[in-house]
Amino acid sequence: MVWNSGYKLASSVSNSGGLGLIGAGSMRPELLREHIRKCQKSTKNPFGVNVPLLYPEMEKIIAVIVEEGVKIVFTSAGNPKTWTSFLKNKGIIVVHVVSSVKFALKAQEAGVDAIVAEGFEAGGHNGREETTTFTLIPMVKEYISIPLIAAGGIATGSGMLAAMILGADGVQIGSRFVASEESSAHIKFKKQVLSAKDGDTFLTLKELAPVRLIRNKFFQEVQELYSENPTKGDLEVLLGKGRVRKGMFEGDLEKGELEIGQIAGLIYKIKPAAEIVQEIIFEYNSIKKSLYIRKHY
Amino acid sequence: MVWNSGYKLASSVSNSGGLGLIGAGSMRPELLREHIRKCQKSTKNPFGVNVPLLYPEMEKIIAVIVEEGVKIVFTSAGNPKTWTSFLKNKGIIVVHVVSSVKFALKAQEAGVDAIVAEGFEAGGHNGREETTTFTLIPMVKEYISIPLIAAGGIATGSGMLAAMILGADGVQIGSRFVASEESSAHIKFKKQVLSAKDGDTFLTLKELAPVRLIRNKFFQEVQELYSENPTKGDLEVLLGKGRVRKGMFEGDLEKGELEIGQIAGLIYKIKPAAEIVQEIIFEYNSIKKSLYIRKHY
Repeated sequence: MVWNSGYKLASSVSNSGGLGLIGAGSMRPELLREHIRKCQKSTKNPFGVNVPLLYPEMEKIIAVIVEEGVKIVFTSAGNPKTWTSFLKNKGIIVVHVVSSVKFALKAQEAGVDAIVAEGFEAGGHNGREETTTFTLIPMVKEYISIPLIAAGGIATGSGMLAAMILGADGVQIGSRFVASEESSAHIKFKKQVLSAKDGDTFLTLKELAPVRLIRNKFFQEVQELYSENPTKGDLEVLLGKGRVRKGMFEGDLEKGELEIGQIAGLIYKIKPAAEIVQEIIFEYNSIKKSLYIRKHY
Repeated sequence: MVWNSGYKLASSVSNSGGLGLIGAGSMRPELLREHIRKCQKSTKNPFGVNVPLLYPEMEKIIAVIVEEGVKIVFTSAGNPKTWTSFLKNKGIIVVHVVSSVKFALKAQEAGVDAIVAEGFEAGGHNGREETTTFTLIPMVKEYISIPLIAAGGIATGSGMLAAMILGADGVQIGSRFVASEESSAHIKFKKQVLSAKDGDTFLTLKELAPVRLIRNKFFQEVQELYSENPTKGDLEVLLGKGRVRKGMFEGDLEKGELEIGQIAGLIYKIKPAAEIVQEIIFEYNSIKKSLYIRKHY
């Protein structure tokens, strides 16, 4: 959710019954501080900050989170041992994002309060095991005892209910909120998400860090480079810097890196975040109730 | 389900409440005829034959199916237009396996009676779009009006219920029945399936036909070849012939091609097929009923 989830989106979600997250991945420490303060002013409900642990200036980012009194942190893309104890000693709830049973167990051992298990269909950076939400959730559930949040492929109430039937205690939803009014993504990228169909995203750049993105011109360039048996260095040169910002924040749909999940194929309209949350909860409850009166097989 | 699903497995499933399928992919026409006849003697319930359309001797295979009075055919790996009208004119129900919305629409247009939509997590041959069960099912459901059967990642009653909540009218289960007593797979392969964990299977050989298999010695050889920027021909030479038979039927776990789905990580015991069917239905009904009395969120 880099370049998407600032205080506007996070506070709207928190105000409408979800737990909004500020995505710190695209923010320098002082910008994050500003978003946290604005979020606190915009909602009285709990919200969190998502921190990709491998990003630069991590000590400063963590310091800002502690100084500003953030109560919930979601960590990803790094070792959960590095910061969990520190954050928990400050009274902060820590949730760690994983893509496998092995990493779920490591996170639990590191003392996190809950785990997000994210499947292969998720947008953006993604696990090397390529395990899908449908199989990852029940497998992780078998091994961990702390709460389990499912992610990857969830954008609707039926998806939420399916994930919870597979073993999740809750769900994390990203892609759906990219196409929210409050997302800070460029309008061109939001519209691109609406027009995406099944098969329009692909996991690539596995030698660097696997990432799911829309098959745009930049993706085609990556594919062409692959046909020449590139080194990791060649891929790094092509990727360059700032591709994600260029695509998702500045709206350059050709040269930018457009991170979104497979479930984009099921997203048709840009809506206010509050409406998205309400629709998901309404559909979740409706289907759950309808199951009882439907025929038992 | 090549080398797994002969008349023993198919009739056991049909006798216990499922629709058993004979996998014709590993059978010459006269062997298929023998399995159909034995299946007819072993069950009075409906059963079907799964036919990968790209296999050799297709005209003879189809002739055997018609001559022996098979009532249900599942086709895959080929154009649904080729045989659907012919089979339907003989009064046979035709179901076609797809991996995308596009192919689902083509199959519906070809006049099939139902569609199997199979996700990326499925074992064996697999779609190029890499769309997962969790996202493929609701997307296909949006576009087709005929019955939709979900496949890929389903081995339990909770998986069946989750797939149906996502939009499926029924489910197709493969991997779970590999580890059944009646599967004709080699016992060494069945035990390998039991010991598989999440991340132990991988989709590879995409230049030929994408296939999900266990990361055994043969898989490592494929990976090593990939590091040398192989041509399609190089991959074909390494693959050779009879790898699947060698691995799954003869039990050569090193040199064989071991096709199984990601959900193998959730399979712990070899059981009679009837017990597997009963457990799935029982769990499906139990969870469905329990949802009503559980707290509504």
